Amino acid sequence: MNSSSNEDQIRLLVDNWAQAVRDGDMEAVLKGHMDNIVMFDVPPPLQFNGMKEYKETWELFFQYSPGGEGSFELVDLNITAGSEIAFGHALLKIGGSKIPQCRLTLGFQKIDGAWFIAHEHHSAPSTN
Amino acid sequence: MNSSSNEDQIRLLVDNWAQAVRDGDMEAVLKGHMDNIVMFDVPPPLQFNGMKEYKETWELFFQYSPGGEGSFELVDLNITAGSEIAFGHALLKIGGSKIPQCRLTLGFQKIDGAWFIAHEHHSAPSTN
Repeated sequence: MNSSSNEDQIRLLVDNWAQAVRDGDMEAVLKGHMDNIVMFDVPPPLQFNGMKEYKETWELFFQYSPGGEGSFELVDLNITAGSEIAFGHALLKIGGSKIPQCRLTLGFQKIDGAWFIAHEHHSAPSTN
Repeated sequence: MNSSSNEDQIRLLVDNWAQAVRDGDMEAVLKGHMDNIVMFDVPPPLQFNGMKEYKETWELFFQYSPGGEGSFELVDLNITAGSEIAFGHALLKIGGSKIPQCRLTLGFQKIDGAWFIAHEHHSAPSTN
């Protein structure tokens, strides 16, 4: 029985995901995501649909990321949680990237008592 | 008494907002937003906080937008709504812009029976 708040459960999900990214641990990165995830990523294309395409974004990321501390850090993570649906946003520092200053928005859904990531939007401001 | 579903109420809020953008109607654009909105926009900086800064993003937008049909069109708007919190995402076609193909994620909060936009994330994929 988990007595922690919805927000606490979501923060743990997000913290574990970000740690998995820093660790380059693909299995742990994919964990806790909805099969029909819609992702907007920093590089093109406009949209990625489903876990197969989601995984491919991380295969590309891991080719260039140095990994470890500072390689994928969420700053000012803010979670707004209801009992079934939640969203969150943070700034994202991506060490070793050509585009180190990014933004992240997440959509969450609770299914059978567990929170899942249903949507991710990663971006950087456009400079052109 | 409004008997429409949470999703229907949110779609109406978003449709009215997008129409207000096309109309260049600032007062209607600002309506239905939380005072402490956090916005990630297409141009820099990384983050805008609160309605004063939010309004400034639209003052800039209206300098360049031709307005009217096609100037700010949401495509494939998807809403995931709970009873108190919701999020949504769409593709965004911005006619007349240097960056016509964008993505939009929205966070919503219901307060005293009415839905408000609490968070907006507008972006384009990075091409550099």
